[in-house]
Amino acid sequence: MPALELIEYAEASPEVRAVYDDIMATRKTDFINNFWKALARDPATLRRTWESIKQIMGPGALDPLTKEMIYLAVSATNQCRYCIASHSASARKKGMTDEMFGELMAVIGMANETNALAVGYQVEIDEQFQTS
Amino acid sequence: MPALELIEYAEASPEVRAVYDDIMATRKTDFINNFWKALARDPATLRRTWESIKQIMGPGALDPLTKEMIYLAVSATNQCRYCIASHSASARKKGMTDEMFGELMAVIGMANETNALAVGYQVEIDEQFQTS
Amino acid sequence: MPALELIEYAEASPEVRAVYDDIMATRKTDFINNFWKALARDPATLRRTWESIKQIMGPGALDPLTKEMIYLAVSATNQCRYCIASHSASARKKGMTDEMFGELMAVIGMANETNALAVGYQVEIDEQFQTS
Amino acid sequence: MPALELIEYAEASPEVRAVYDDIMATRKTDFINNFWKALARDPATLRRTWESIKQIMGPGALDPLTKEMIYLAVSATNQCRYCIASHSASARKKGMTDEMFGELMAVIGMANETNALAVGYQVEIDEQFQTS
Amino acid sequence: MPALELIEYAEASPEVRAVYDDIMATRKTDFINNFWKALARDPATLRRTWESIKQIMGPGALDPLTKEMIYLAVSATNQCRYCIASHSASARKKGMTDEMFGELMAVIGMANETNALAVGYQVEIDEQFQTS
Amino acid sequence: MPALELIEYAEASPEVRAVYDDIMATRKTDFINNFWKALARDPATLRRTWESIKQIMGPGALDPLTKEMIYLAVSATNQCRYCIASHSASARKKGMTDEMFGELMAVIGMANETNALAVGYQVEIDEQFQTS
Repeated sequence: MPALELIEYAEASPEVRAVYDDIMATRKTDFINNFWKALARDPATLRRTWESIKQIMGPGALDPLTKEMIYLAVSATNQCRYCIASHSASARKKGMTDEMFGELMAVIGMANETNALAVGYQVEIDEQFQTS
Repeated sequence: MPALELIEYAEASPEVRAVYDDIMATRKTDFINNFWKALARDPATLRRTWESIKQIMGPGALDPLTKEMIYLAVSATNQCRYCIASHSASARKKGMTDEMFGELMAVIGMANETNALAVGYQVEIDEQFQTS
Repeated sequence: MPALELIEYAEASPEVRAVYDDIMATRKTDFINNFWKALARDPATLRRTWESIKQIMGPGALDPLTKEMIYLAVSATNQCRYCIASHSASARKKGMTDEMFGELMAVIGMANETNALAVGYQVEIDEQFQTS
Repeated sequence: MPALELIEYAEASPEVRAVYDDIMATRKTDFINNFWKALARDPATLRRTWESIKQIMGPGALDPLTKEMIYLAVSATNQCRYCIASHSASARKKGMTDEMFGELMAVIGMANETNALAVGYQVEIDEQFQTS
Repeated sequence: MPALELIEYAEASPEVRAVYDDIMATRKTDFINNFWKALARDPATLRRTWESIKQIMGPGALDPLTKEMIYLAVSATNQCRYCIASHSASARKKGMTDEMFGELMAVIGMANETNALAVGYQVEIDEQFQTS
Repeated sequence: MPALELIEYAEASPEVRAVYDDIMATRKTDFINNFWKALARDPATLRRTWESIKQIMGPGALDPLTKEMIYLAVSATNQCRYCIASHSASARKKGMTDEMFGELMAVIGMANETNALAVGYQVEIDEQFQTS
């Protein structure tokens, strides 16, 4: 069954190889992680997702490490194990220390706690937070 | 019915007032937002939540603005409207520009997209991301 | 547009009325809340949902109030505002005190916090918790 | 410990066997997947869940394959690995091609992205979408 | 405060207007819904999101109405009110009848129920669903 | 890579050992589960989380078993496998029978179903549930 089929470079179409090449060049590595090899079954999604990631995760008003930590915040909230594993590795590479990781998780935990409390207590949005 | 009852300072118990006073002193404001006024119905949760927030959201290995943006990432993923409204205001106060907000949302959106793709494609965690 | 159309008793089909009658008789009230009036657009779902709720939420190994609090735990986690509002009312009717509500919310908040921590720290399931 | 105990046909009660028999007859297979063997510990839930699934997933205004893809959309959003695995298999059996699967995942990914953006940007519902 | 600022056509930059024009031309309407007016604060995200949506939601192996229903499945699961409102309207326009909507919601509800049951019962993935 | 590093008692700092000692004394066991050994990498989070759990999960207006079931309701909704495994074990220890577990799961499943239906049908909160 094709559900877990991963497309390796050797068997990839030219269209898929072009994306793989760009991933490896951009990341200065010869490692393509499974996420891309899985998406490669649908080359249009592979290309669009990679183009978006490349554009979004690069430096800008926010630095790349901050962006990886935001990614981890979403992934922990969604309980996405693959995403936690892969983006923890990326964040480490970009300089996340143990101390930063600890604080990151503390904020993520607290935010998930207060999110549930805010809706459970049916808190109305303060006028001061209303915007126009 | 008590579900939306907010405890105002004037009617608060000394225990609750002590937390309100600390919130106002810490934040250098005389504004207590509804979240705390709702939690005040359960003084133990009010105190524990405030003490935790104060400890976690202050400066450390991560700066306070980065922490607010991580909070927003969790809140957008959880679809918590109150939390988005209140922490957007906090993040703005701590220096989040329009450009930073735009990039923050772009990362949050992308992370939610790839989280769903990772599980939908049943991607296995790469050996390189396995840790020991 | 029909999206928010609520089916009132007076205009309901006999099939829908039969469900409404059973809701009112079971709950000893003449109030049908909007959830049922919305579902009534699809009588099969209305009937199946009501039959399931009636069977599940009645007394058994767990008492009805405990079940309402479990309902609230799910609803706060899902950020479902309607569900929080309606099941808070039900829980109050069945005897939930302010103190019980406070503890309920404290547990819900803590569980959401530790759920995020467990996946963020990539905690493996202990052998002792493995079952066979 | 009973948490992962699966009830096999040979050891099942007549009540459970009746459901298993109906599952096998309806699906024209002699394979009962683990989900049902786990639910069998609570025969009332087993029966109610199967009866609902059988009624809901059959042909109607929507065809069975469309329904399986909707199931996958919910399961990917919830990060439910078991559900993705089992309903991917069902969808394949009912005719989902690789191309359809690719488009399905693209829509699921995009919807999860824009859901987060909609709440993050605090977008108000347009009057044109308000219904009455 | 800029959090809810919507960028109207008259005040939009040429870059934003180009996207608005394409939205109106593609959808054969002169109505731009609030989602796009909110995203317009970040023109890069506006353009990327619109280009992706246009590519993904058009006809392909899946028809546009099926795609809208998949969108609704994700949005109901995420409890995203804006997304439900806007994509319900789109689905109606593309031919979703009341009966189809009723079945769609029944599947979404059932999928959310069984997702929780699958993890709560700690169901292991069947060998038959393991893929390679 | 440190992502899965668990801090065993023998190698723990005095600060971490003090928490481990309190966990074992409070729970009358010599077993520290992986969750705490993972959190121990960040002693501040370890201590705060344990202190909160100890305070919240003890007897009060709600009994400890009810609290464990509420924990399970959150964890099943969030699809948190570790949390389901560990809190199922705790709930069993505190007296959860098979019948109670079955009813618990039935309520959790039903709540997740109706949460999705409530937002999908865009149900407005009834005036009777509005509070002030």
